[in-house]
Amino acid sequence: MRMVNLVANCGFCLSPAVKTHCSSQSHGHNNVIRFQNSKSSTSSLNLRSCSKKSNKLFATRASAAVQGQANVTQTPLTGSQQASGQSSLRPKKVMVIGGDGYCGWATALHLSNKGYEVAIVDNLVRRLFDHQLGLDSLTPIASIQNRIRRWKSLTGKTIQLFIGDICDFEFLSEAFKSFEPDSAVHFGEQRSAPYSMIDRSRAVYTQHNNVIGTLNVLFAMKEYSEECHLVKLGTMGEYGTPNIDIEEGFLTITHNGRTDTLPYPKQASSFYHLSKVHDSHNIAFTCKAWGIRATDLNQGVVYGVRTDETAMHEELSNRLDYDGVFGTALNRFCVQAAVGHPLTVYGKGGQTRGYLDIRDTVQCVELAIANPAKPGEFRVFNQFTEQFSVNELASLVTAAGAKLGLEVQTKSVPNPRVEAEEHYYNAKHSKLSELGLVPHLLSDSLLDSLLNFAVQYKDRVDTAQIMPSVSWKKMGAKPKTVSV
Amino acid sequence: MRMVNLVANCGFCLSPAVKTHCSSQSHGHNNVIRFQNSKSSTSSLNLRSCSKKSNKLFATRASAAVQGQANVTQTPLTGSQQASGQSSLRPKKVMVIGGDGYCGWATALHLSNKGYEVAIVDNLVRRLFDHQLGLDSLTPIASIQNRIRRWKSLTGKTIQLFIGDICDFEFLSEAFKSFEPDSAVHFGEQRSAPYSMIDRSRAVYTQHNNVIGTLNVLFAMKEYSEECHLVKLGTMGEYGTPNIDIEEGFLTITHNGRTDTLPYPKQASSFYHLSKVHDSHNIAFTCKAWGIRATDLNQGVVYGVRTDETAMHEELSNRLDYDGVFGTALNRFCVQAAVGHPLTVYGKGGQTRGYLDIRDTVQCVELAIANPAKPGEFRVFNQFTEQFSVNELASLVTAAGAKLGLEVQTKSVPNPRVEAEEHYYNAKHSKLSELGLVPHLLSDSLLDSLLNFAVQYKDRVDTAQIMPSVSWKKMGAKPKTVSV
Repeated sequence: MRMVNLVANCGFCLSPAVKTHCSSQSHGHNNVIRFQNSKSSTSSLNLRSCSKKSNKLFATRASAAVQGQANVTQTPLTGSQQASGQSSLRPKKVMVIGGDGYCGWATALHLSNKGYEVAIVDNLVRRLFDHQLGLDSLTPIASIQNRIRRWKSLTGKTIQLFIGDICDFEFLSEAFKSFEPDSAVHFGEQRSAPYSMIDRSRAVYTQHNNVIGTLNVLFAMKEYSEECHLVKLGTMGEYGTPNIDIEEGFLTITHNGRTDTLPYPKQASSFYHLSKVHDSHNIAFTCKAWGIRATDLNQGVVYGVRTDETAMHEELSNRLDYDGVFGTALNRFCVQAAVGHPLTVYGKGGQTRGYLDIRDTVQCVELAIANPAKPGEFRVFNQFTEQFSVNELASLVTAAGAKLGLEVQTKSVPNPRVEAEEHYYNAKHSKLSELGLVPHLLSDSLLDSLLNFAVQYKDRVDTAQIMPSVSWKKMGAKPKTVSV
Repeated sequence: MRMVNLVANCGFCLSPAVKTHCSSQSHGHNNVIRFQNSKSSTSSLNLRSCSKKSNKLFATRASAAVQGQANVTQTPLTGSQQASGQSSLRPKKVMVIGGDGYCGWATALHLSNKGYEVAIVDNLVRRLFDHQLGLDSLTPIASIQNRIRRWKSLTGKTIQLFIGDICDFEFLSEAFKSFEPDSAVHFGEQRSAPYSMIDRSRAVYTQHNNVIGTLNVLFAMKEYSEECHLVKLGTMGEYGTPNIDIEEGFLTITHNGRTDTLPYPKQASSFYHLSKVHDSHNIAFTCKAWGIRATDLNQGVVYGVRTDETAMHEELSNRLDYDGVFGTALNRFCVQAAVGHPLTVYGKGGQTRGYLDIRDTVQCVELAIANPAKPGEFRVFNQFTEQFSVNELASLVTAAGAKLGLEVQTKSVPNPRVEAEEHYYNAKHSKLSELGLVPHLLSDSLLDSLLNFAVQYKDRVDTAQIMPSVSWKKMGAKPKTVSV
């Protein structure tokens, strides 16, 4: 099956209808083709996909890609090399959907650095949300074009860029046909629980965007990349807070004298978390019905901002959200500590969740890609390294702050969410460890990465963004038209 | 809370913007107001909602409603009567979403007959599907306007009609504000598993329509009818075929020495069935977060066509689908037997499911409405009366056919679905019995309703529609543009 893909991969198989709209534009180091599809949305494809110069360019890039790349020992192959059976020599291709976002950007760079051929698919809508809600990352972030250009100039490695919406199947099809990924890492979802609870239109957007986008990815894989391995970002929030141990995706149940292993029951508590539950069910079905190979990474709360790659240059910096909509508990606490704002504990603070360093996010995704699911297999890994309650996090940040000379206060604020504030929580997370995950633990990260980083950028903090602004109970059907 | 709703109910609370577009049209017995909303889709509202004549009309209707109605002892009240605290005297109002469909139409008539004030909300898209796919009901069915007119002329009872799409929240809001339902029975979903497996666009349509439509209903209830009880049609197919007993919605699990009662694990096996799983999760969340009261009726396979009400006149006839897309196992078998076509058993025929007579569907919905869930409660009832394997159904139809002088053959055809063909199946279904359900059993129904009916209309059968035409494994991303 691999050979079929490889041969097809050399065909530069854009449809004639699309080719006729091609026009070349130069963007500094990055040659990009823009074309107009039939829905009048503008998409970008790397020149390689859409030009008679593509073979030549491919060779150039292949050469460039090798220069700064310790882990890759082969160059990408030409069509004739592939046809002669040398397929195993080319680097694996990974499509990172949502590769301009917090986890996606760090992952794209990490995989590129590790020798994978990477393409980013993103509609950049996360940047639009910031504009619309009047929010901004703590860290200044460069445009995706400048990010990719800087990465190329520093490392010689090319990251292809497909700008468009995966809910537009015509766009997604062209991206799949052009890039022919071996793996698709899917971060391309609206990922904020509070955002999904702002109003009806955001709830509907979140579920539509996430569910239909993922359906389209599954159909694209079935149609164009049957061997492709889907690595999908789920969330630990799918499980809720049951009064029994949380297993990794499945639970063996004995009931009335009979036994079966069934999907772990889901109790999500926002329209965002629910969208991930829906995705999980849809993906599991396509694995069974179509033989899709998929890994669902039920990720905990990610903290941190620096990875080996994003630390290489300020234009590679990752975003760090500390606001009430996109900021997550620990990142937000560190920023609060840096600016002398009390740590805002929602309710009693007994809410316990799994957490992980963003350096472990990229490591986990790489492990999943390197050890793919079998055809028809639907695997679920719980992707976190440690459990903390909100109160425990507050204590850790307070202690770490003291070492930096920061006096950190904590205050309880009314919980904007509907959730248990004191509960049992014991979630298993051994499968990624068994694949080789070596975790970065919070006790170290707090000082060596996160808190220092927050202090470094504290002049950029807008304290008006810190407090929770979205209420689970009060959300309305009418659109909120002003900043939340 | 009830009083708040009642007072609001007398306000004929269409927005001024909508009112300015009102124009009166006469449709025989049924006075309907059509208005253009801002999205340029045409919607209909009963005259009562949109005219200065409304109080007078309401009185007329209230009077008419009592004439043929044994179970109702009070007339609907005027605003002043309601304001003076006589709210308990008015009949309960039920909005039947999808009230023009197979289960919806039978339910709307049944509830109207039982003294409920009924409004049908439907976009009539089920009729469009038949046109597009070249299919037709075995029974000729009248237009929804003629159905309602005939019902009025036979019984004196008015059924209000709101024609529009519940995915259009502006339309749905107007319907909720105008009708102020005590209960919303939600059949308004794309309900065919094969339809959802025709191609990508139908899969996406099914999940979008069902999930977003239901989200809109939940938001409309939160915004406009906080006390309204949602009675949502789910499906037994949400559970799949686990190797343990199927409970009603929840399962008490003991694991590693701890115990919790959790949502029953779901293993749906089509994009349609998955959409119902998604709905169930979304509804459960809103019960918890917003205090919505909801009953999820996980219905088995419905058979039969006649109810007491639809049998009153041929213009009240219900649809009966026997085709490979919308026809369900038993109805299809009866039509096959009537025309001398072999019964088409998919694969080994050991597939076992819960079944119920459509006369029990309407009874179950009535029981759920009459015994509503409490605020914040998410109830799940398994709505079926008997379990059969496909092979058992084939044997029953063969035997029943013999009594009518029909020689019935059976043949196995390749299974178009991905499903276990031999499996354990034991699903609980006691909750509706506890509320008073008295089932119609298949052994009786086969002869007194279904098979005779099929024979009566056999000249309308198009045998080209009988065979399965949609393959789970072969479904493609590209749109199927011809009849399936």
